[in-house]
Formats: sequence, C-alpha cells, structure tokens
Amino acid sequence: MRTRLLLFIGALSALCVSDIGAQGPPAPSHFLMPVPASVSWQSGRLPISNATTVAVTGAADDRLKAATQRMMRRLESRTGHTMSRAFAKDPAAAAILVEAKGPGATIPTVDEDESYALTATGTQLAIRAATVVGAMRGLETALQLVSGDKDGFYFPGVQIQDRPRFRWRGLLIDVGRHFEPVDVIKRQLDAMAAVKLNVLHFHLSEDQGFRVESKKFPKLHELGSDGEYYTQDQLKDIIEYARQRGIRVVPEFDMPGHVTSWVVAYPELASGPEPFSIARTYGVFDPAFDPTREFTYKFIDTFIGEMVKIFPDAYWHIGGDENNGKQWGTNAEIQAFMKKHGMKDAHALQTHFNQRLLAILKKHNKRMMGWDEIFQPGLPKETVVHSWRGQKSLFDAAKQGYDGVLSAGYYIDLLETAARHYAVDPLPANSGLTDAEAAHILGGEATMWGEWVGPDTIESRIWPRSAAIAERFWSPREVNDEDDMYRRLARVSIQLEELGLQHERNGDMLLRRLAASRDIAALKLLAGVVEPVKGYQRGGQQRGQTTLSPMTHLVDAVSTDSPGAREARRLMDAMLGDAPRFALNRDRLRTIFTTWRDSRKELDALIERAPALKEVAPLVADLADLGTAGLASLDMLAHAATPLPEWRDAQLAILDRAGRPKAALEFPMVPMMRELVFGAMSQAEARTMKPDEWRAHVKTLAAPPRRGRGGGPQ
Amino acid sequence: MRTRLLLFIGALSALCVSDIGAQGPPAPSHFLMPVPASVSWQSGRLPISNATTVAVTGAADDRLKAATQRMMRRLESRTGHTMSRAFAKDPAAAAILVEAKGPGATIPTVDEDESYALTATGTQLAIRAATVVGAMRGLETALQLVSGDKDGFYFPGVQIQDRPRFRWRGLLIDVGRHFEPVDVIKRQLDAMAAVKLNVLHFHLSEDQGFRVESKKFPKLHELGSDGEYYTQDQLKDIIEYARQRGIRVVPEFDMPGHVTSWVVAYPELASGPEPFSIARTYGVFDPAFDPTREFTYKFIDTFIGEMVKIFPDAYWHIGGDENNGKQWGTNAEIQAFMKKHGMKDAHALQTHFNQRLLAILKKHNKRMMGWDEIFQPGLPKETVVHSWRGQKSLFDAAKQGYDGVLSAGYYIDLLETAARHYAVDPLPANSGLTDAEAAHILGGEATMWGEWVGPDTIESRIWPRSAAIAERFWSPREVNDEDDMYRRLARVSIQLEELGLQHERNGDMLLRRLAASRDIAALKLLAGVVEPVKGYQRGGQQRGQTTLSPMTHLVDAVSTDSPGAREARRLMDAMLGDAPRFALNRDRLRTIFTTWRDSRKELDALIERAPALKEVAPLVADLADLGTAGLASLDMLAHAATPLPEWRDAQLAILDRAGRPKAALEFPMVPMMRELVFGAMSQAEARTMKPDEWRAHVKTLAAPPRRGRGGGPQ
Repeated sequence: MRTRLLLFIGALSALCVSDIGAQGPPAPSHFLMPVPASVSWQSGRLPISNATTVAVTGAADDRLKAATQRMMRRLESRTGHTMSRAFAKDPAAAAILVEAKGPGATIPTVDEDESYALTATGTQLAIRAATVVGAMRGLETALQLVSGDKDGFYFPGVQIQDRPRFRWRGLLIDVGRHFEPVDVIKRQLDAMAAVKLNVLHFHLSEDQGFRVESKKFPKLHELGSDGEYYTQDQLKDIIEYARQRGIRVVPEFDMPGHVTSWVVAYPELASGPEPFSIARTYGVFDPAFDPTREFTYKFIDTFIGEMVKIFPDAYWHIGGDENNGKQWGTNAEIQAFMKKHGMKDAHALQTHFNQRLLAILKKHNKRMMGWDEIFQPGLPKETVVHSWRGQKSLFDAAKQGYDGVLSAGYYIDLLETAARHYAVDPLPANSGLTDAEAAHILGGEATMWGEWVGPDTIESRIWPRSAAIAERFWSPREVNDEDDMYRRLARVSIQLEELGLQHERNGDMLLRRLAASRDIAALKLLAGVVEPVKGYQRGGQQRGQTTLSPMTHLVDAVSTDSPGAREARRLMDAMLGDAPRFALNRDRLRTIFTTWRDSRKELDALIERAPALKEVAPLVADLADLGTAGLASLDMLAHAATPLPEWRDAQLAILDRAGRPKAALEFPMVPMMRELVFGAMSQAEARTMKPDEWRAHVKTLAAPPRRGRGGGPQ
Repeated sequence: MRTRLLLFIGALSALCVSDIGAQGPPAPSHFLMPVPASVSWQSGRLPISNATTVAVTGAADDRLKAATQRMMRRLESRTGHTMSRAFAKDPAAAAILVEAKGPGATIPTVDEDESYALTATGTQLAIRAATVVGAMRGLETALQLVSGDKDGFYFPGVQIQDRPRFRWRGLLIDVGRHFEPVDVIKRQLDAMAAVKLNVLHFHLSEDQGFRVESKKFPKLHELGSDGEYYTQDQLKDIIEYARQRGIRVVPEFDMPGHVTSWVVAYPELASGPEPFSIARTYGVFDPAFDPTREFTYKFIDTFIGEMVKIFPDAYWHIGGDENNGKQWGTNAEIQAFMKKHGMKDAHALQTHFNQRLLAILKKHNKRMMGWDEIFQPGLPKETVVHSWRGQKSLFDAAKQGYDGVLSAGYYIDLLETAARHYAVDPLPANSGLTDAEAAHILGGEATMWGEWVGPDTIESRIWPRSAAIAERFWSPREVNDEDDMYRRLARVSIQLEELGLQHERNGDMLLRRLAASRDIAALKLLAGVVEPVKGYQRGGQQRGQTTLSPMTHLVDAVSTDSPGAREARRLMDAMLGDAPRFALNRDRLRTIFTTWRDSRKELDALIERAPALKEVAPLVADLADLGTAGLASLDMLAHAATPLPEWRDAQLAILDRAGRPKAALEFPMVPMMRELVFGAMSQAEARTMKPDEWRAHVKTLAAPPRRGRGGGPQ
C-alpha cells in the first residue's frame, strides 16, 4: 500500500465532504478538537487556582485515578499553579469531579463506550461517563476548555454531550522502515489520547526491518533488525501505557510480501533463492513466504502463538499487500502446487495463504484484518478490510457485510496539508450505503509510513495534522470548516507540547544544525514559505538516499502546512477579490514580497558558510525572484496598468522555474501568484465583469498546465 | 552545601585567574572546546563526503568501535552525507583512522590515561591514543574540527597533542530534590563526553527523595520517592552507558544529615521522634541518623553492601554536609553517649560517625569522599575532600596530604553566567601550593543541585555553561579569553543538540506554553534581555513554590547568559569608550532602546490573554522604561548636552526600579545603563580627562549602592 500515488490522489479528490449540515462552525472562541457531538455554552466561569481540587467517584480504578492525576499535572504546568495531589474527599465540594459508572473493559475493545457528559458551572466542572475510558476522553476535553484572560485561568460554563462518530480511530506507525525508540512511541500515545484517537496500529515488520524480539525465533530480531527492535518487556510496557490511555494496540506482521527481514533470518520461509539482505531502499521487493510448504504455516503458528501472549487486542493485522508474485512465478515447486490445486494466478495462491492464516488466527482467538488486497471471493465475513486503495473497496466490502477501516486519504507520509486530509470523510453523505451497510465502516486510520521519518522528525510529520484527522473520525460530519480547523489546530499543537511532543521544537533544532548557528532568522523565512514535495517525489528528488541516510535536510525541518505560504495565498486571494480596486492587503503583500526579494543576500552568505544548505541555493534564488515578480504584479495592479504580453511571459517564466521542486521542497504559493499575474493582465475585464465572474475568469486563465498530479474520480 | 550564598559569592570573587600565559587565544576560526593542550594548524584539508571511511586499529574493542560509529552518525547528521557503516579494511587508506594502543581500564578510573594525538592532513585524520578512552576523547575533538565553506565540509590540517589538566572533571546531578528520568541522564552523559567531562557525581538521596531501588530495604524507594526512583536495572544501564563513554559514576548517599526520605521509610534510623514526611520545601532539615546505635551501622553496612554490586567506581561519596545537630542535641540518649565518650560537640560525634562509615566503606573496598565538613582532625588520609565552601579548605587539605575536588565556584544551580564560572580556577597560579601539594587537587565538579530544575529545564541549566567549566578543568590555565569562550560556546551548544540535548529547544517550548501561541516574537524580546535571579533568591521571589510546583514560569525559559543584555552592554561599553564623541554604536543602540520602549503594547496585550504571564507585567513596564531612559541618555550624549541633576535622578529612579528583581528575573544591563546616565552627566569632564581615566571616573560614579551581594575574600 505504499507506492500508488495516483490512486491516493484520486481518493483525495473524490472524497471531499459533500454535505454541510445546518449547524454552523463552533463558537470561535473555543479550542476544542475534536469538536464534541453537542456543545452548549453557558454563563458562569469556574476559576482555576492553587485551590483547584479534584475528586474521582464511581468506578474510581487506578487507571482513572492516574489519568486524572496526569490531567491535573498538565493543568498545573499550563497555569503555573500548584495544586493538591490528594483527591478531594467530598465530591460535591471538589472543583473538578470525575465519575465513571463502571470500569469498562480491562483491555480496551472496539466496542468500548467512550461517551461522556461534561458540565461546567461557576462552582464545579463535572465529567460523567459510563466507563473509565469515556471519563478519560472527558478529561482531555476539560484540558482543552481551559481559558484565560486578565482575571486569570478558568473553565467557561458549558454543557457537553459527547461520543465518537466512529469506533475505530487509528494511527499507524511503521517502525519497520525506520525504528522509533520506546519513548517516541509513548509520546505518540500521549498525543493520541489528547485528541481521542484510540488505536495504535503498530506496523512491526518490513523489508527494511523486523522490530520485535522473538524468543522462539531469535534470528528474526538478531539478523533482521540492525539491532533496533523492541524487547518483549518493552512491548508489554508500550501496550500497558496505551491501555492506561484507553488505546488499543493492533500489531501488524505483514505477509506474505514485505518479508525481506524475515527471510534474511530464516531463508527457508522464502519462495526464492538466497542470499537475502535487509532492504536499504524503498519500493516493492520480491521476497515472499512460500505458501505451499507446511513449514511456513508451522513457523507462523508458533510465532503468532508467542506474540499473542504480548498483544492482547482482539484484532490481528496480517498486511497482505503488495506481494508482486515474482518469486512464486519463478519457483517450479510453487508453480506445480498451483497447477495441482487448480490455482490460476498469484491471487488464488494468496487467498489460499490467507485462509490458512485465518485458521491459525482463529485458533489463537484473533480476528483477522488485512489491506484491501485480501478482499477476494471466499474471504470469511469476520475479516476486516483495511482500505488503502480508496473508498470504493471499503464500500463494496461493506455491502457484502465486511467490516472496514479507511486509510486512503489519510496517508500522512505523503505530506499533504492538514486541510486535504480533513476534507476526506470515511462515510460521506453520498456513500450510497444503507444504515446497516454503513455500520460496517468502523472508522479510519492515519498512516505514518516510515520511509522518510526518524526519531527527530516523525513527530512533526504526525502532529499536529493527525489532530485534524482525529476530529474527522470523532466529530459530526458537519464539522468541516477549514479555517476554523487551522485556528484550533495551532492551539492543540502547543498543548501537545505539554506531553513532551517534539513536533514544534525540532524544526528549529534542525535549522540550527543546518546553519551551524543560533541565528536562523533568515533561514526560517525560507523554511516558512516552502513545503515538502507531496506524494512519492522525495526519492526522486534526493537520489542516493537510503534507510541509513540522515534525515537532517531542510525538507525534514519544514512543515507540511507552510504558514508563510498560506498567509501569502490568503492575502493575494482577498486582494484579487477586491477587484477592480486591488487595494486590500496591498501594503502587507508589498512587505512580504520585499522580504522575499531581499532575503537572498543573507541566505546566499549563509549557504557559503554552511554546506549542508547547498542544495537549497536554487530555492533561495527562486524566492528572491518570486518576491520580484510579486512586486511587479502589485505595481501593475496599483497603477491600473495592463502589462504587455512580454511582461506576462517573463513573470510566468519565473513562476514556472520557481514552481519546479528542488531539494524535495516546493513553494505552495506559486499557483496563486499565477493568478496575480493573470489578474494584472485582466484589469480591463475587471471593470466590466461581475467580481465573481472575473475571479473565476482569472482562475481559469491561471490554471497551470496539468503535470500528472491530478487524477480521475478514483 | 546548599545555602551559603555569601561563601559562594566570595569564592567567585576571590578565585579569578591571576596569571595569563604568553600564548594568546586560539586561532579565531576554530570551535574546539575544551581547547587542547597543544594545537598546531597545518595547511591542507581533508574533504568530508559520502565516501568518507573510518578504520579502527590497535585495541579495537567493542567500546571503541561503538564510539566510532556514534561519531560517524553525528558526522552524517551534521553534513547530510550517507557514509558506509562498515569499517574500512585498510587503515592506511581510510579517511579517518582511530588507534588505541591498549584498552585501558574496563571500569574507568581516576588514573585513566586520557591523552591522545590527532593529526589531520589532506589524506587522513588520525587519532592515536594509549587507551580506548583517550581515543574517544580524540573522536570528540575530530567532530569539533569539522569545518565548512562553499566547497563543502572538511577537516582542516592540524596537529594536536592533548591531555587533561585535571583527572577529575565532574558534573553533579542532584536527582533527590527533583527526579530526572533515565533518558535525561543519558543525554547528560552524551553531552559530558562531548566536552570531555569524566565523572557523573550522582546525588541519589535527599530530604526530598530517595531515588534508588533497594531490595534489602524496599521501603526506602517505596515510601521515600513518590514513586520516582531508578530500578537497579536502570542504574546498571546508566552506569554501562557512562562506561561506554569513559565516564565514571560516583554515587552519593548523603548522611548523617539530608536523610528525611530515609527516615520516612525507616524512622528507627533517626535521632528524633516520628512522624516524618518527605520534605516539600528547601533548606536544612533536622532529621539525622542516630550515630550512637549499632542498628544504624548495620543498616548502612547492609545497604552499601547491596549498592556496591551496582556502583563499580572506586570512590563513594558520603555527603556529610549541613547536619544541623538539632536532633542530636535534643536526644537524651545521644547526649549521654557523647558525654560517656567525651565528645564535646556535634562535630566530634559526626567525626565518630564518619570513622565508623569509613570502616564500612573500607570493608567494601571503597574510597571515601565527602563535603568539606568532614575535614576534621583525625580524618584518614585516603579520604577525598570535596569543597563546596571555598578553595581554602581544599588547599589546607592538600597541604595536609588529602586529595581534593573543587565545587565552590561551579555551583551552576545559582544561575551565574558562564563567564563567572569560567573565571574560577581549581589551581590558580597563586595557590601557594608546592607541586607535590598541588598534585592533590584532583579537579573539580560543576554541581547541578535540584531545587529549581525538572526534566524540561535541567538541560538548559547545565548546558551550554558546563562546557565552559569543562574547558577550565581540561585546558591549560592560560586558556581564559571570555569573548572567545562565548564564541565557541554558542557553536558547541548547537553541536550538543545532535545528541538529543533539549537545552536550546525547550526555552521556546516554554514560551509557547506561556503565551498559548506559536507567535512568541514579543515574548522572546523580553526573554532575551532578562536573566534568572542569581544565588538563592528564587525561593524568596516565588513564595509558596514547593518541590511539587510546575517549573513553567518565564524564569524557567530564559538563559543564564542573556544574549540581548550582553549585546546591549557591549555596545554601551564601547560607546562610552568612544568619549567624547559617543558616536560608536549610537544608531544600533537607538534601535535597541526603541524596540524595548515599544514592546510594551504588544506584551501587555499578550499578558491580558495569557494569565500565566501575569507575574511578568512589571518587567514589561520596566523594559519600556529602560528603553525610554536609554533613548534619553543617547540624546544627551548625541547633543553634547549635560543634563540637569533632576534629569539624572529621574533616570536613576527608573533604573533602580528596573534593577529590582521581579518574578525571579532581573535585567543584567541595568548597571551599564547607570554608566550611560553618569556618562551623560560627565560630558564636560570627558573633554578634559584622558579616556581611560574618564571611563574609570564614570564607573565609580555609577557604582550602585551595595546591597549585600558582595562578600569578603572567603
């Protein structure tokens, strides 16, 4: 499920939410994310101070008490207050009351009741839930409610009734391609809990690495991991840490493809000849398990038998994707087996493998889940289909009675903006599914595939964008205002730092390293207006990079949601909307374009000193040119002068040059700058056409020649 | 050794390096820290690229191989290159050659030979050392040699002969008052190795917490730690991590005072009556072991017997400081014991205790070390005296044949600038010691006492300042140029980030939390011109704070070496040196003062929204006033107008007000701004006096009334 760019882009285009309900965006002053199912603001405010106390009642088990204490520590660290660490004895008198009617499942399940009610008045904030996990979700909402003004911190008066829209709200972390230490994983669990995600899909084996200690087959981690794996104690620790936060851990051991690291250790599992070595590059590799030998199933049975003692979740992800069938096709014995059993192609053989696997999993009381390749005739109904290829296979499966989880549209490794993922709905209003069929859509998962992330960068790739995806999975379908999402996302991002998350701080750290200096103001200007190339372009942009390469390039330091480019785009858009005056934002844009134009001298000097930045020199030239072109366009608009075609062509040449990615980076404001140029060319029409018509006219003129980035409706 | 401000300040004043050798500051283009004993720059440069290879020869044990691999990974992460992970087979052809003649001690000792030679030519960088640890020190130097220009990264041609000036170069980390997680400790070990520190003095028990798992006396960690302690496996892991980096770990279990957390668990150890509870505040507490009961010694013997299996170092720190003797004085049995044995005071009883302790340590093959209170008549000669009170006791002890380690002057918890600590020499030229006596000065230790640091802030309190102290312990006495130290320190600080250190990045993180926003430009302006109050003032400034209070105030986010204040001071100083024209830096200062003056509006608005900043509102007003006063002084100087006394008094009133600490912060440029005011008043004299005389005259006029911050010569 890694390499099919067009399918993914198609999914993104096709899946935009189509219906926006009558209820408007939430009150602009709050920073709740995900937005609760129902919020009713009330008068009154509950001050927060050193004297703020908390009580836990009902099924006040250790898990809920610990979660409540963590919440109180975060409340302290945000407000600077020192509160009592003892629980209040009189619940009625406590400032904060947390009540769970029952403990819920000891091991979190997909059927957990996560609903809660939260009421804040001038005297008490009360969270009431049926289960401990529901109460924990409410604790996170309480922390997002904390407000402040000149009179201090407080909880605003509010009544919230909340429950998730989908039961399965996951984050896949691929530690196969690059390993992530335990503390990194724990931080992601903390952040997941903060935005109410409830499944860590732990992708534990890959062509590039096998990441789990096996006592039955120790060569797996000894030979398949470069020494980077989790001990069984560490895995238990991670799973308990997740359980404490009401998060399930679903392991994935991908098979029969994506198994190079297994066959490095145990070549007898493979369908092709030795020698094997751990993959150091990316793509679809040939090694596949031999599905015709009993040895393979015995091995898998023993291995899974060992692993089920560690992973308590009811679900088990078998992967099942991207087996290219080459080793099967060239192995005479396998070919003979297929002929003997009347299997006409590799799909049939893989279905056979899956059915054997299913039996093993059933024996170990696990429910099977796999990528949508497994959705073949004869697939048992209890299997869960995990769609990376698009919504269609998910809906098709649902119509046939299969549960499904959507990841198409949530491939965060492709470095799309938060807005693009936010616009994808696992179950849009126009899905065409009956209610019964729709009930099979369990939810979705953001996928943090590991090609281009390491411990220093994975957090800025997951966060804060995944909070927007988490809202998509939790909040009502009608919550979909992009600007309001970004407003709240910025606040949530900072709150995640309270949990130790490194996503905000590591960008500057990498810039300092690149510049070999604390003085990174000029570099930040550049870093703030570029975005990483989207999709699967990076490998092409940075040839020669392997799994062992350092991820310390400028592309690793910048956000997928360039704040500078977004701001410039917004200002230009509004200016063009101010036709035919074009006065709105003009001064602000002039300042911005001038800064771009004038950044070159200092940046060029920096690059001379700091060779790690050499690859971005062309971008520095581009940015200066963009500034010049922007200023020229502003001048034309300010003087109501329609330029000559030669002027236009010169500007477009600049924009075309700047529009081509370099050093795996691109300028996301280039398309809007084309509109600015065409707007300058079309000033005469602006005086005769209706504003909306003119705006659309300019957009059409400015639309760039397609370069294969678009796609069909799936 | 915690509370005696005056003594410490006295030590700082008295211990300035008195002799500066003939050799000047090192070539300004290098960033070596500590500066090696001998450096000779050569022509030639060795390019660094994807093709850079490394070979390890001689006693190429696993420790050296691992250290070399770590060095190569850092080289990659800094340059962006991807190098081979295999060692080169032909040492002569390798770009980097690492050779250790012998393995050195398996457990690092105080006698380890840490010397090395490093030679870089156009074809090879070679590190040669007698021991593995020596070679590791050379690896760190190699990383500091990495240079870059428009032609790429390279090692400059050089010949280095290096060895430490002192054998004992320590960092004390107090995890008793605030616990620090294992990963924090490991990062400090990485950073220590990077600047060639070689002793982690691990202060493991305190009135506020007992931080070690004991299987013999489990109540110690169960009742004495709030659940925050190291398991024995974690301790072994830390010690092995240190050993891998050639760092010793010397444990300190402070006794007979500073033992509240012990007697919470085992009150039978105490000299006073129950109940006891873990200390939540700071100071000298009464609880002390009962030195008259055999139970006490049996307990200690058993405990140490358990701990020596974990801590392999030859030295054992018993603390021994700040026992106030109150419990002994009010315990009738203890008084009777003293009378019976002819002990005239608590000192005599503590000497008795120490001698019993010494026998226990001897039995366990440990050499005893303690704070200078233990330096009493009859102290066995093999004891090491650790001086927190000043150099005098160290020298006195050395004269009597005792080994000693200096910490007076290196109390980094007191938040003095790097320059102040850098100026303290453990063995100044005027020490008066003979060579034989001087040989007893083993070295020094920076002390990170734990009152006001937690996991998010301890790194910015230790680093980068401790790199300057490390240079003092390693480099020749004559290396003492303050400006050059700061120049190199800024670079070293960024290189430490490659090791995961959080000291640079966590400041902004805390500012974002305080502002509840990513937009922290205005707040950074303020944060950049303040410093934490020095010494022991914070407790008085922030009353009500306990060990349980969050350390998320502005004071926790700012550096001990304010870059903005240092810059402003430097500019003002040079301007006054430009008498009687006062033209130098005038425009630059005008810009700075204007920025200060105009910062108020935005900062006040921020504080209205962000109540966690409320305590700094007076500082915002002060900064604006300082800007106004600065501009007024500039005007007077620019117009050669001598102001009236009323003007002077008005400015001084502003400076006095701004000079008073608030929110545990102070403006370090205020004294220099007084000079600016008195300079403006003394313009007439500037035209008649010699420049140096006039400058001294102004300094005298501007000297503030003493407020008890100074002190005698010890």
